[in-house]
Amino acid sequence: MSELTRFSMSIEETLFQRLGKLVSRSKYTNRSEFIRDMLRERLVEEEWKNNEEVVGTITLVYDHDTRELSKKLTHLQHHHHNVVLATTHVHLDNHICAEMILTKGRAKEIQEISDLLRQQRGVLHATLSLSSTGKDLK
Amino acid sequence: MSELTRFSMSIEETLFQRLGKLVSRSKYTNRSEFIRDMLRERLVEEEWKNNEEVVGTITLVYDHDTRELSKKLTHLQHHHHNVVLATTHVHLDNHICAEMILTKGRAKEIQEISDLLRQQRGVLHATLSLSSTGKDLK
Amino acid sequence: MSELTRFSMSIEETLFQRLGKLVSRSKYTNRSEFIRDMLRERLVEEEWKNNEEVVGTITLVYDHDTRELSKKLTHLQHHHHNVVLATTHVHLDNHICAEMILTKGRAKEIQEISDLLRQQRGVLHATLSLSSTGKDLK
Amino acid sequence: MSELTRFSMSIEETLFQRLGKLVSRSKYTNRSEFIRDMLRERLVEEEWKNNEEVVGTITLVYDHDTRELSKKLTHLQHHHHNVVLATTHVHLDNHICAEMILTKGRAKEIQEISDLLRQQRGVLHATLSLSSTGKDLK
Repeated sequence: MSELTRFSMSIEETLFQRLGKLVSRSKYTNRSEFIRDMLRERLVEEEWKNNEEVVGTITLVYDHDTRELSKKLTHLQHHHHNVVLATTHVHLDNHICAEMILTKGRAKEIQEISDLLRQQRGVLHATLSLSSTGKDLK
Repeated sequence: MSELTRFSMSIEETLFQRLGKLVSRSKYTNRSEFIRDMLRERLVEEEWKNNEEVVGTITLVYDHDTRELSKKLTHLQHHHHNVVLATTHVHLDNHICAEMILTKGRAKEIQEISDLLRQQRGVLHATLSLSSTGKDLK
Repeated sequence: MSELTRFSMSIEETLFQRLGKLVSRSKYTNRSEFIRDMLRERLVEEEWKNNEEVVGTITLVYDHDTRELSKKLTHLQHHHHNVVLATTHVHLDNHICAEMILTKGRAKEIQEISDLLRQQRGVLHATLSLSSTGKDLK
Repeated sequence: MSELTRFSMSIEETLFQRLGKLVSRSKYTNRSEFIRDMLRERLVEEEWKNNEEVVGTITLVYDHDTRELSKKLTHLQHHHHNVVLATTHVHLDNHICAEMILTKGRAKEIQEISDLLRQQRGVLHATLSLSSTGKDLK
């Protein structure tokens, strides 16, 4: 964490009370923490929009009986080994696997890999979580 | 607008500088205004989630040659006249119309009307904008 | 509407049954209509992504007591008169107005206008509905 | 995979051509596969909306120097051990970690866990990927 500073903002009385209710209904300990989290979410959106270096998790659900699929998925990941940080595999039932793939790289490259994996025959579902290297969120 | 108050929050030095950059890149005049806007967006999301009284705009694009479609759309809107505040119609070309419908009511009812309109044959596209009565945003 | 054609697709038995349930739970009259609507939604997303000519509705909620705001909003819309097709205004209570603005133009220009309007002091909320000219959806 | 069946649908000529372009621009091998994937995405959205049993990946980015944070995150995950299937941890730099957590359970419970983790002090970012057990997607 970097040093904490204080920042004073003006806000309408009504809006301030609504903020208080929102914070107390959630599990946040105080208003500052709530606002900082909103701000961090916005910054991460900007990182993805501006094609900065980001972190993303690709989650695949696929049928491992599909011919050559595992081989293809492994091959695609190796081809992008500079971007893929770690892969974890779980057997959901006799046929279906879930795989989560942590990636770090330019936003566009991660999106392309995610699209490529989704399009393989036998992949039932693919999602991409937009996250961050955290460098500018501290 | 309700009375303005001041609120002081703690924030990491780095995060504070990033906020400054974000504000200056956008057209916001100052940090307070930017944060209040983020907060208002969050409050509106909550209003929709909690099925409160909200405002929403339904935008339809449709082919006015489709048999009985205009009649059906008008009928559906009349049936929900307590929710529909105003409708504006524009002719996009010889065949296609755009219609925007301002609604005010419970979030769920507005979503249902929007779904119902979307499902009519000849409606090419329908979207629903999630907005607010503004009562708690001042 | 353009001429109808028939298209035959292969689909897993289970998935086909799930499609049937989805259609019958919704108000769609048949599977074809449901799939065509999914496809149209995807096409509209592409139009916005590729900065094509699109239609969008901007919904503003604002406090009309804010000094000079109405004048500013009108001025901004006039400045973009080639994009703004129609504006409808509703008084929500003594102080708050809702305004829906139908626009047609390049995706990026519409997004910029929407951002510009959102950032005006006194505007409590702004949303942009991503819709279409419908040309390629028939 | 379940048995394949054939399904014939009617579609406007123009829309059919747009579908062809969309498929050829993407990496999909044919129209059927593209439509099945759109359908699966819709089904997964429904599973989450209807609080069915789903799979979700929570991605956390956090500062491991924050006092007691690692302990708290581990504790929270153990408390929900019936939902957490696997956790993978990566050190992004000297201070920041990324953690991806594969979960399987009711949609609401997974969302609650995700919110709870996000709200811990020191967690810089949290996202939840909405995925599926794949049972109804085959």
